[in-house]
Amino acid sequence: MRNSSRGAVDPFIVMDVMEAARAAEEAGRHIIHMEVGQPSSPAPEHARKVLADTMKTDPLGYTVALGIPELRTRIAQLYGEWYDVDLDPARVVVTPGSSGGFVLAFTALFDAGDKVALGMPGYPSYRQILKALDLQPLEVQAKPENGLQLVPDDLKGLDYQGLMMASPANPTGTMLDRGQLGDMIGACHEAGAAFLSDEIYHGIEYDKRAVTALEVSDDVCVINSFSKYFSMTGWRVGWLVVPPAQVRQIERLAQNLFICPPHAAQVAALAAMDAGDELNANLAVYARNRALMLEGLPKAGFDRIAPPDGAFYVYADVSHITDDSRAFAAEILEKAGVAVTPGLDFDPVRGGGTLRFSYARGTADIEEGLERLRVFMEHR
Amino acid sequence: MRNSSRGAVDPFIVMDVMEAARAAEEAGRHIIHMEVGQPSSPAPEHARKVLADTMKTDPLGYTVALGIPELRTRIAQLYGEWYDVDLDPARVVVTPGSSGGFVLAFTALFDAGDKVALGMPGYPSYRQILKALDLQPLEVQAKPENGLQLVPDDLKGLDYQGLMMASPANPTGTMLDRGQLGDMIGACHEAGAAFLSDEIYHGIEYDKRAVTALEVSDDVCVINSFSKYFSMTGWRVGWLVVPPAQVRQIERLAQNLFICPPHAAQVAALAAMDAGDELNANLAVYARNRALMLEGLPKAGFDRIAPPDGAFYVYADVSHITDDSRAFAAEILEKAGVAVTPGLDFDPVRGGGTLRFSYARGTADIEEGLERLRVFMEHR
Repeated sequence: MRNSSRGAVDPFIVMDVMEAARAAEEAGRHIIHMEVGQPSSPAPEHARKVLADTMKTDPLGYTVALGIPELRTRIAQLYGEWYDVDLDPARVVVTPGSSGGFVLAFTALFDAGDKVALGMPGYPSYRQILKALDLQPLEVQAKPENGLQLVPDDLKGLDYQGLMMASPANPTGTMLDRGQLGDMIGACHEAGAAFLSDEIYHGIEYDKRAVTALEVSDDVCVINSFSKYFSMTGWRVGWLVVPPAQVRQIERLAQNLFICPPHAAQVAALAAMDAGDELNANLAVYARNRALMLEGLPKAGFDRIAPPDGAFYVYADVSHITDDSRAFAAEILEKAGVAVTPGLDFDPVRGGGTLRFSYARGTADIEEGLERLRVFMEHR
Repeated sequence: MRNSSRGAVDPFIVMDVMEAARAAEEAGRHIIHMEVGQPSSPAPEHARKVLADTMKTDPLGYTVALGIPELRTRIAQLYGEWYDVDLDPARVVVTPGSSGGFVLAFTALFDAGDKVALGMPGYPSYRQILKALDLQPLEVQAKPENGLQLVPDDLKGLDYQGLMMASPANPTGTMLDRGQLGDMIGACHEAGAAFLSDEIYHGIEYDKRAVTALEVSDDVCVINSFSKYFSMTGWRVGWLVVPPAQVRQIERLAQNLFICPPHAAQVAALAAMDAGDELNANLAVYARNRALMLEGLPKAGFDRIAPPDGAFYVYADVSHITDDSRAFAAEILEKAGVAVTPGLDFDPVRGGGTLRFSYARGTADIEEGLERLRVFMEHR
């Protein structure tokens, strides 16, 4: 029995929290879930209805590898609606979730040993997928004064072939404005590196609008998904936007690596794009939850937070309370009955002193969770 | 704009045929599709009904990375029913299609530069996925007298870290009996290499039953899927069976590379496993089609064929007619209105002299296709 070394990726530390929460619930306790990274809402009703109808008449066999043409066209249209960007549907590649998008983009762009710069804290799977593909994650510590986002100075003197950024970011929710995004794309291109923009939380934004990298340059790879704004996590459907000269390479890789994205999910995703009312109702819940979090977390003593411009997370510096976020999260679960994510998943260096709170669930849960946190911290 | 060298995988040659067939149909011609590698039947009615019901109440968020526990248990049970093998559900990993299974297995087992032996002819994506992962496909020519399957002698003196075999095979439909499979697993283990068994066509077999590698050894990686026997190609759900000591590595990779297999597809797949009557009806169609093919192809002059024990393909040696299967397939499409797959996709060395005929479609199409081929060859 063999095991590769490339496959020895790190476990998710939050899995311990989730397992402990599950065990607590099995033992009869009531747990508030602020550790989850997904909406509690299902796919829009219209999407489910269209799929139920389609299943009656369409065998739902393989689609072409780049995705159903109507879906690619509708996604391109979204760039007009959201950003006033005129996008050729031929540049849109439907993928099996943003996960599939990362695998496709990384294999299309980079060869074994290439270095891809990532700002820490960041989505943990970036570095694990890179490692599984024999690429090197280059972890760069982002500064609190920059909203925990990288700035050009952070990259000076570094050797890298790619740079991945996210805005709104996970775990912080911080966003880059057009100038900041343009500066990073410029610095990256000057270094001869590919710029990858993870825009999975676009649409979930509050006081200001998220900027797509496509507003700045066509020579970028945008990764997005139906998981968050469109509330379709388990469906595994997302998309890439790539430069025209890259489409053919991506298509061949997709044919072989995936054959096609899940057909049923593509049908549902296309319909979800016409479910604006339901999606806006979800968004109103997040906005209400966010307001509650921004009021309630500081009251509980969690007041060192990155500005949560978008997504449904608050990332808190708790280094004045602990240097062991894993033990602290276990204590919060045990004593307050609230599951939260230790920062170590997002930042192996400083994450011992941070926590991520998610407000993706219902408002009643958020209110109850905040009250539990306040009482817990008061008596700690 | 960058393009990696690992990503420069070969195109599918059959895509040219499919595009030409599409164009012919758009121009009003009627084309018989013997190039397709998928059933024309939808997922079983029971599966679609259960999913339609589940969508009403379950938000279908992320599942755990290894798949819904009930589905893993039900798959393990299948090994008892089909092979009398007692399988621990903990060894079953639900994957996003067999494609996802290949990516997971290859990254869990092999490091950059490792060599994986493949019998030619074979499924083209094996070598393309290996290449995309910076692994080296070691293409070994299988002999016609061995049913175009590898035998231990073919591997003598070769340096390889893995061996992939398929029974029933694509494109030939030939199968290995228990002794032949045992010999290959033995030879592979003696060489210190991992044995991977692609069993995606299991269940679609005719005169004799397909043997799973798990009947021979626990130290193998089995890849299977709901695409073929269960008639769920576009749903992208399959599974792996791996040694117990590999599960944890696979789980971590799956968490990062895919998060989870499509939830809706897992729900449908679980229900499909209770749709035996409908699946057996599909199988009766394939059996009827196969009998027609074995009678009709020789009458049309295609009489040099590998024994099609399973799957829904016949692989014909046409080297006495042409050494350019690509041009020959184009001619057959043009003059007979039948789309077939040139062998070059499956065997870059000898495939100029071979064709693959699929009989996965309805019986009326098969009858019409065979008649067209007969008339075409008679007047050629």
